[in-house]
Amino acid sequence: MKALQHVAVGAEPEVREIPTPEPGPGEVLLRVTAAGVCHSDDFVMNNPPENFGIELPLTLGHEGAGEVTAVGAGVRGIDIGTNVVVYGPWGCGNCWSCAQGLENYCSRAAELRILPPGLGAPGAIAEYLVVDSPRHLVPIGDLDPVATVPLTDAGLTPYHAIKRSLGKLRPGSWTVVIGSGGLGHVAIQLLRHLTSTRVIALDVNDEKLDFARSVGAHEAVLSDANAAGKVRKITGPAGASLVLDFVGFQPTIDTAMAVAGVDSDVTIVGIGDGKSGARIGFGVSPYEATATAPYWGARAELIELIDLAHDGVLDIAVERFSLDDAPEAYRRLAAGTLRGRAVVVP
Amino acid sequence: MKALQHVAVGAEPEVREIPTPEPGPGEVLLRVTAAGVCHSDDFVMNNPPENFGIELPLTLGHEGAGEVTAVGAGVRGIDIGTNVVVYGPWGCGNCWSCAQGLENYCSRAAELRILPPGLGAPGAIAEYLVVDSPRHLVPIGDLDPVATVPLTDAGLTPYHAIKRSLGKLRPGSWTVVIGSGGLGHVAIQLLRHLTSTRVIALDVNDEKLDFARSVGAHEAVLSDANAAGKVRKITGPAGASLVLDFVGFQPTIDTAMAVAGVDSDVTIVGIGDGKSGARIGFGVSPYEATATAPYWGARAELIELIDLAHDGVLDIAVERFSLDDAPEAYRRLAAGTLRGRAVVVP
Amino acid sequence: MKALQHVAVGAEPEVREIPTPEPGPGEVLLRVTAAGVCHSDDFVMNNPPENFGIELPLTLGHEGAGEVTAVGAGVRGIDIGTNVVVYGPWGCGNCWSCAQGLENYCSRAAELRILPPGLGAPGAIAEYLVVDSPRHLVPIGDLDPVATVPLTDAGLTPYHAIKRSLGKLRPGSWTVVIGSGGLGHVAIQLLRHLTSTRVIALDVNDEKLDFARSVGAHEAVLSDANAAGKVRKITGPAGASLVLDFVGFQPTIDTAMAVAGVDSDVTIVGIGDGKSGARIGFGVSPYEATATAPYWGARAELIELIDLAHDGVLDIAVERFSLDDAPEAYRRLAAGTLRGRAVVVP
Amino acid sequence: MKALQHVAVGAEPEVREIPTPEPGPGEVLLRVTAAGVCHSDDFVMNNPPENFGIELPLTLGHEGAGEVTAVGAGVRGIDIGTNVVVYGPWGCGNCWSCAQGLENYCSRAAELRILPPGLGAPGAIAEYLVVDSPRHLVPIGDLDPVATVPLTDAGLTPYHAIKRSLGKLRPGSWTVVIGSGGLGHVAIQLLRHLTSTRVIALDVNDEKLDFARSVGAHEAVLSDANAAGKVRKITGPAGASLVLDFVGFQPTIDTAMAVAGVDSDVTIVGIGDGKSGARIGFGVSPYEATATAPYWGARAELIELIDLAHDGVLDIAVERFSLDDAPEAYRRLAAGTLRGRAVVVP
Repeated sequence: MKALQHVAVGAEPEVREIPTPEPGPGEVLLRVTAAGVCHSDDFVMNNPPENFGIELPLTLGHEGAGEVTAVGAGVRGIDIGTNVVVYGPWGCGNCWSCAQGLENYCSRAAELRILPPGLGAPGAIAEYLVVDSPRHLVPIGDLDPVATVPLTDAGLTPYHAIKRSLGKLRPGSWTVVIGSGGLGHVAIQLLRHLTSTRVIALDVNDEKLDFARSVGAHEAVLSDANAAGKVRKITGPAGASLVLDFVGFQPTIDTAMAVAGVDSDVTIVGIGDGKSGARIGFGVSPYEATATAPYWGARAELIELIDLAHDGVLDIAVERFSLDDAPEAYRRLAAGTLRGRAVVVP
Repeated sequence: MKALQHVAVGAEPEVREIPTPEPGPGEVLLRVTAAGVCHSDDFVMNNPPENFGIELPLTLGHEGAGEVTAVGAGVRGIDIGTNVVVYGPWGCGNCWSCAQGLENYCSRAAELRILPPGLGAPGAIAEYLVVDSPRHLVPIGDLDPVATVPLTDAGLTPYHAIKRSLGKLRPGSWTVVIGSGGLGHVAIQLLRHLTSTRVIALDVNDEKLDFARSVGAHEAVLSDANAAGKVRKITGPAGASLVLDFVGFQPTIDTAMAVAGVDSDVTIVGIGDGKSGARIGFGVSPYEATATAPYWGARAELIELIDLAHDGVLDIAVERFSLDDAPEAYRRLAAGTLRGRAVVVP
Repeated sequence: MKALQHVAVGAEPEVREIPTPEPGPGEVLLRVTAAGVCHSDDFVMNNPPENFGIELPLTLGHEGAGEVTAVGAGVRGIDIGTNVVVYGPWGCGNCWSCAQGLENYCSRAAELRILPPGLGAPGAIAEYLVVDSPRHLVPIGDLDPVATVPLTDAGLTPYHAIKRSLGKLRPGSWTVVIGSGGLGHVAIQLLRHLTSTRVIALDVNDEKLDFARSVGAHEAVLSDANAAGKVRKITGPAGASLVLDFVGFQPTIDTAMAVAGVDSDVTIVGIGDGKSGARIGFGVSPYEATATAPYWGARAELIELIDLAHDGVLDIAVERFSLDDAPEAYRRLAAGTLRGRAVVVP
Repeated sequence: MKALQHVAVGAEPEVREIPTPEPGPGEVLLRVTAAGVCHSDDFVMNNPPENFGIELPLTLGHEGAGEVTAVGAGVRGIDIGTNVVVYGPWGCGNCWSCAQGLENYCSRAAELRILPPGLGAPGAIAEYLVVDSPRHLVPIGDLDPVATVPLTDAGLTPYHAIKRSLGKLRPGSWTVVIGSGGLGHVAIQLLRHLTSTRVIALDVNDEKLDFARSVGAHEAVLSDANAAGKVRKITGPAGASLVLDFVGFQPTIDTAMAVAGVDSDVTIVGIGDGKSGARIGFGVSPYEATATAPYWGARAELIELIDLAHDGVLDIAVERFSLDDAPEAYRRLAAGTLRGRAVVVP
C-alpha cells in the first residue's frame, strides 16, 4: 500500500510503497478514509527522532478515520464496516491515568515503548492503519470522515483544555483565544456551544480575524505589541477568565499573561519553539492566575466531541489533499496558507 | 479443579469439580489466592437467575485475588507471577462510561451479555479464574491477598460512595454510617483517612458498636426507633452532611433521611429487600438533600484503594475459610455471626 | 404608600395604604420599579401563616427591582439612583452557608427570625421597599426592570438547579424540563445558553409546547400518562442526564424518575402539594440517579444571571399589571392563563 | 491605648499611645486577646507604602483575636462578650467574588480604598481593634485565642491553597511542602487531617526537619541543590501531585517545578522577593502541571478551620510576646529563630 513517510530529519515526507499490515490478536485493521495534517508533525520532522523515541522511516498521521475491515483474535463488540475515528494518544490502558481514559498521560507508555500512531507507531496517512485496541476507536455513524477526522486532535486538544476550565466560564466572563487556525477555530466554536463566555480572538491579519468572527468570536483583535491593552479595554479591569494560547511562542504567552485576570486560567496549547513559558509567582502574576500546558485529551472527551458533531453545530474548515499530494499539504502548512485543517483522503 | 457453585435457586452452594479453564486471546488466567463472600451472593441465590441474566450452575465469587499463571494471545504489560486483585464490574471497555473506567455503569453490558465474575461469568471461589482483560487486574505487590481481596467490593463500593461526596465532608461536618459490617467497617476507616469529617456509626448491638469505635467511629449509637433523635442530639440542628446506609431496608433508610441536613447526601448502598426507598420532594426532604443508590466503583478507584492499603492504614477484619468450607461461610453470613468479611482461601 | 397585602388565609390580596418606610442603619430604601408575582405566594396565602413563621398583614412580592433613593447610616459603595434587583433569600450573612453567599440555606435565619421580603418581611409589591443590606442588591445598569425582575426567582431558581448539574450536561446528553411556565421557560433558555445538552420540554397542551419550542426546546412532548415512553423513544436507553420538574406533583415526579438515566440528576423545583416525592433505593431507581429538591439560589448566581441578561440572550415572557390591578395578576396565575411571568409595575 | 505602629520605611515598628477607637454604624469593637506576627509585615515595612496604598503611621497586625466589647448601630446577631477571630482580607462584601466569600479577591477593594487590618486599616497589635463588619468575625467559643489566632492567616492561607488541590490528593499521591515554619507546619497538619496524601517536607536544617516530622511529615529532606533528586527518589517517576512552596525565592520555586509530576499543582505561597517565578510551557514544564500563586483565603474556609481546631487535632506552635515586647518578635522573625508563630498578647 501507499503511505506518507518521514524518512530523514529536516527532509520533506515521501509517498512510499510499503506492505499492507495485518491485525494481530486484539488489534483492528482500518481502511483509512481520512487523515489530518498537523503542526506537531513539522515539529517532529525537524528534530532528532531519538528526542521522541521514534525510529525512521515513520508513516505520518496522528489524526485518523477509517472503516473497520478486519479484526484480530479476541476482538469483540465492533462490526466489520463500522466507520470510526481513532483516539490517538495511546497508553497502556491499565495504569491509574489510563484507567480513567487519560491515556495522554499514561505512566507506563515510555517503559512499554507505546507511542501514538504517526508519532512513533505507523500513522494514518496511508491506505490502511492498524489500531492496537478497539478501545481506541470511536464510531461516527454517518458523519463525513473528512470533516470529522480533525476532531481527533484539532478538536480534542482544545476540548480538553476548555473542559478543565469550564467552572470558570460563567456568564459575564471573557475568554481570549490566541490563534484561530486548525485548533483555534474549533476552540471558538466549542466555547460558544459549551458555555456562555464571551470570546475574544487574536490573530495576525484581517482575513484571519474575519474568519474568527465567522466561527463565533464576539470580538477579534490584531495580535501585535498592543494586543493586551486592546483586550483589557474590552474586558475591563477584571481581565480574562481563560486564555487559550494556540501559538505558544514567548510574545503570545506574554500577551496571555498580560490579559489574565485574578483566579483565571492561562492554558498554553501551542508548541511554539518548545522553550517559551509563562511566569507565575507572587508579585509576578495575578493572584491565583494558573498557567498550564496540557497535552491532547481523554477517551471520553473524544466520544463527547463526536456526539457534538452529530448535533450538526460544528463547522470544521478543511482543505482536501490526495495521498499523492500529501507532501504539498505539509508545504502549505509550513507557509501558513491553509484555511483550517488539511486532510488527506487516500 | 474445585469450584463453589450456585446450582439451584434457594439451595446452598456446592463445592464441585469442573474443568480448569484456559485463557483465550486477550485473557488472563489466575491461580486464585483469595476470594471474598458477599451478601449480594445471597440475594442472587434466592432470586430467579433470569432476573440477573445468569445461567446455572454458576461459580460464585465476585471478589477475587490471584497470581497470574498464563496469558492469552496479544496480552502485554503483565508478567507471569504477578499478584493481583480483580476489578469486578466488567464492562465493554469502550463506551462513554467505560472510557472513564466506570465499567460499573457500562451502557453496552446487557447488549453484549457481559456480566461480572461470580455474578454471571465464572467467579473467583475456585482454584483458577479467567479474567477477560488485563485492564481488570490491579497489581498488589507484597500485600496479603486475604486481607486485600475484600477491597475489591467491600472496599471499592464504600470508597466510590464516599468519593462522590468528598466536597461536602468539610471539617466540622458529620457523617452517619448505618451498619458497621463488611462494607461499613471499611467505610468508617476510609472516612477517617480521607477526610476530617466526624463519624457516627449505627448498629444493632453493643458488640458491633464497640467494633465500630475500634475502627475509628467518633460516636456509636444503637440503631433503633430512637436512633435519629440520638444522632440529632450529637450533630445539632445542622444534621449530617453525609449518610451512608449499608443496610438499605425501609427502617434504616427512614433513619437516614431523618438525620440528613440541608444540602446533604444520603447514599443508599445496602441492597435491603430491593424495594425500599428514600423520598425526596419539596416539603418532604431537607432543602437540596440528595439521595442516591450507587453500585460498586470505578477502575481508578480500586487502584487508589490498593495504594491506600500499601500505606498500611487499613485494618480489614477477615475470617478465613478453605474452599471445602466455603458453604459454611455462607451459612455464617446469613446468620449474621461474621465479624468483618469471610474470605475463601483455595 | 400603596402596597399589595395578604391579609387573611385563603382570601385575595388587597391593595392598601401603609406608611412609607425609612431605611435604618445599614439598610437601603428602593423606589420599586417592578415586582414579580409567583406561584409560591399562592402556596403561602392558602396555608396557616405560622407554618412559615410570618405575621399578617404581609406586603407581598419576593421578586423586586427598584431605584436606590436613600441609604441608612454606615452604608457605603452604592450610589443614590442606582437601578438594582433584590436578592430575595435573605440570611444572616455570617454563618457558613451565608459566608459562601448561599443565604437560601442560612443556618441562623430561623433563630434570628430573618425572612425574605414578601415571605415574612415587607415585600416588593408596593411603591417603596426597604432592603436590609446592600449585599442583597445587584445593579442592573440600563436593563429594563420589568423584563429583569423575574430573574431574581424565576431565573435564579432554575439557574441554581442547573448549575449544580452542569458537570453531567455533556454533549450528547438529554435534559427533560417538565413545565414551561414562569420558571420552566427560563430554564430552557439557560440550558441552551450554558450547555450543549439537548432539551425535551413537557407540558399539557399544544400552545405551551409551541411556546417551549420557541424559547429553545429541541423536542416538546405532551405531558400525559405516556410521556415517559415518548421521552425514552427520543433519548434511547441512556435516558436523561438531568430532569427538572417545575411542577412537583406526584404524576410529574413519577414521569421524572421514569425518564432518568444511570448517574443522572432528578431535580424537583416545583412545590406541588408539598407532600409528593421521588423514591430512591437499590432496585427502585437507576444506579446513582440522584434526586433532590433545592430552594432558590446563591448571591453570586444572581450576579451571573444579570451578566447573562446584559448579553441580550434571554427573552423573559412578561405580562404587566399596575399596582391597582395586582390582585388580577394573582387571579390569572391561579387560572393558569399567564404566558410567562406576571410583573407589577407601581 | 497602646498600639504597635509601623512609622517609617525600613525602621523598626514602635509601641505608641493612640486614641482608643469607637465603632461606627455596622462596625464592631474588639478588646484584642491575641495578634499574630507575620513575614508579610516585614515585606510591607521594607517597601514604599504607596506600593500597597497605605499611609503611615500604621498599626500592625493582620491576624487578630478578641472579645466583642461594643457594636455600632445596626449590628445584629453577635453578643457582647463573644470570643472571635478576625477574617483579614476585607473586601466590599457585594461584588461577585465577595458574594462567594472570596473577599481576598474583591474586585472593588482598590476603587473603594478597602484594605485589611494591619495592612492599611488599623491592625490588631493594639489593645483594641475596630472591625468594619460582623461578617468578618468568626466565633471561637472556648478555644485559646493565642493558639487560635494564627489560623486567620498562617492557617487560612495554606488551607485555601490545599483546598483548591484536594481533588488531586488521592491515596498514593505525594505532596511536597517547602518550608515548615509559621505556615508550613500548619500545612503539614492540614494535609494529614484532610487527606491521605503522603507528605515530604523540605527545610534548611535538621532541627526544622525534625519539627516537620513531629507535626506529621512522612519524610523530611534537606532543602539544598540536590533536594529535587532526593524527592524524586522517594516519589518515583510520577513525582509530586502537589507542591506547596512557602518560601517563594527562585531556588525553592525551581525545586518545586523539578519535583512536580504530570497533571500536578505547584502552588507558590511564599512572597520571596516578589519577583521570582515558575515557568510553564510546552517542553518547559510537565504536561498539565499547573502553577499558581494564591493569596490568603475565603470566609467559609476560616469557619471550617475553626471547626477543625475545635476537634483538637491542630497543634500550632506559638511563642508569646507582650505588647511592649512586640518589636522583639519582629527581630526574632527576621533572624529566623522563631519556632512556629509569634503571637502578641496585649
